[in-house]
Amino acid sequence: MRVVLLGTAAGGGFPQWNCSCGLCAEVRAGSSRLSPRTQSGVAVSADGERWFLLNASPDLRAQIESFPPLQARAKPARNSPIQGVLLTNADLDHTLGLMQLREGRQLRVHCSPAVRENLTGGFPMAALLDSFCGIQWLNAPENLMPLLCHDNSPSGLLYNSFFVPGKQPRYMQGKALSVHGHSVGYKIADERTGGRLVFVPDIAAIEPGLVPRLSDCNLLLFDGTFWSQHEMHERCGIDISAGQMGHIPVSGEGGSLKILAGLPAKNRIYIHINNTNPILLEDSPERAAVVAAGVQIGRDGMEFNL
Amino acid sequence: MRVVLLGTAAGGGFPQWNCSCGLCAEVRAGSSRLSPRTQSGVAVSADGERWFLLNASPDLRAQIESFPPLQARAKPARNSPIQGVLLTNADLDHTLGLMQLREGRQLRVHCSPAVRENLTGGFPMAALLDSFCGIQWLNAPENLMPLLCHDNSPSGLLYNSFFVPGKQPRYMQGKALSVHGHSVGYKIADERTGGRLVFVPDIAAIEPGLVPRLSDCNLLLFDGTFWSQHEMHERCGIDISAGQMGHIPVSGEGGSLKILAGLPAKNRIYIHINNTNPILLEDSPERAAVVAAGVQIGRDGMEFNL
Repeated sequence: MRVVLLGTAAGGGFPQWNCSCGLCAEVRAGSSRLSPRTQSGVAVSADGERWFLLNASPDLRAQIESFPPLQARAKPARNSPIQGVLLTNADLDHTLGLMQLREGRQLRVHCSPAVRENLTGGFPMAALLDSFCGIQWLNAPENLMPLLCHDNSPSGLLYNSFFVPGKQPRYMQGKALSVHGHSVGYKIADERTGGRLVFVPDIAAIEPGLVPRLSDCNLLLFDGTFWSQHEMHERCGIDISAGQMGHIPVSGEGGSLKILAGLPAKNRIYIHINNTNPILLEDSPERAAVVAAGVQIGRDGMEFNL
Repeated sequence: MRVVLLGTAAGGGFPQWNCSCGLCAEVRAGSSRLSPRTQSGVAVSADGERWFLLNASPDLRAQIESFPPLQARAKPARNSPIQGVLLTNADLDHTLGLMQLREGRQLRVHCSPAVRENLTGGFPMAALLDSFCGIQWLNAPENLMPLLCHDNSPSGLLYNSFFVPGKQPRYMQGKALSVHGHSVGYKIADERTGGRLVFVPDIAAIEPGLVPRLSDCNLLLFDGTFWSQHEMHERCGIDISAGQMGHIPVSGEGGSLKILAGLPAKNRIYIHINNTNPILLEDSPERAAVVAAGVQIGRDGMEFNL
């Protein structure tokens, strides 16, 4: 299975359009200690020809142009190797990219019932896209099942989803849903090689029952949004905590790094990194602490073969 | 007045993600005869400090990063020199960028009542953004009025809008509106220099009454979406005409070039150019015909001082 990190920043990207915090200012100035990052998204393929997107960021157009295997093939004039999109939640930074795929064939969108409800009753993407390509909704399965291509042929991949602690998208706050499960993670396995990816870009807490799920893979792509609970306040004067935004911080007693450090996956990678997070800085002590724990910091274009 | 063309392609951009027509394939291969283009949008400013966007394309994040005057100033940590957004219609390629500005202060969106209705009843951007920055709607005036900054101070610019023949956004088809005027053009004038821009990126026909409007400017930015009526069919096998998409073609007896050739503006520029349009190709006879008529082909980053 080929896995490529199309984008590794949290919502807003790095730099963020309206931010001049130390990190955003320095990356705009072309610092060698920082790399610009587009908003979080991943592409996977068993055969290198037929691809699935894991989330669809607002930067998707640029991400497709940065990675030739996702581009249209020579014939016919209009086509795409993208077979479907798997959503972990209905946040805007994970779903706006679907609107950019409107010129193509019907979209196959895999997600939880709650995410579908958000994208029907909150952000009516389903109705909007019905005037263009339309959406075929598929319930992300709880048990490992074949992930089918657009023509229903096998892709060579198996997948399942699992609920993780999360929060409603901000645009749905105050609206009651008929179902639970705002955020899911995915396991994706290659039928031939046995390679296994676990993808969890948004998670508010690591409950003990989740650790076996995070352990059963060669590659773990994990929520690295914030270094600490109160980073948004300290760096940008915005009074909202990591927890209130639905993310477990990397550092601290209850942070994710202590757990990731003990997991067996060969590659454990932080993704979905906010522009305020000091692990972005290549010579920061925070980054050094992550690396010392055997965990890596994702960057755009990073590729893995599982 | 400074005017910068942030993006000069029609919806989908150039290349378009799912297109491998001759032009898209050649620009991806890095041809020297073609330049990539992001989706249509313009920025204007009287003082070079405080800026207004004309339409907000899905590529807005990358466009801001490509043009430093639109980026956040040094302090406070979160800020933006963008004072407001003027919309010509409610098409997705002109409005999706508003969603990318959600992390900032309240958005001031200038548009016609019909566009506002599209973005309330069709694509409920107003409700979605209420959970973030919120939108303050301003009716684009029919007569020249001061264009105010976010704090209501004068910007040094005057503006007015005028209805042009257009069509409903595709996502609104079949829905009746209470008001007319899906598309408008804008005139923007510098109070100090008298420099005048007319901006018309989408227009289905040039009615005789419109010619005086198009004549009263130093810089005309005009709909160059299609070279010919049936280009989409010929190049991509898609059976829809320029007229059905709400655009007058450049060429032919009823085309825009014959009219633009006779207009007095020093700079007459085609913008909003579709990926199928042969004027994109620097050595095409179609481009030569445009240049021979005294009209230019817009490209991303082009700047004017009026």
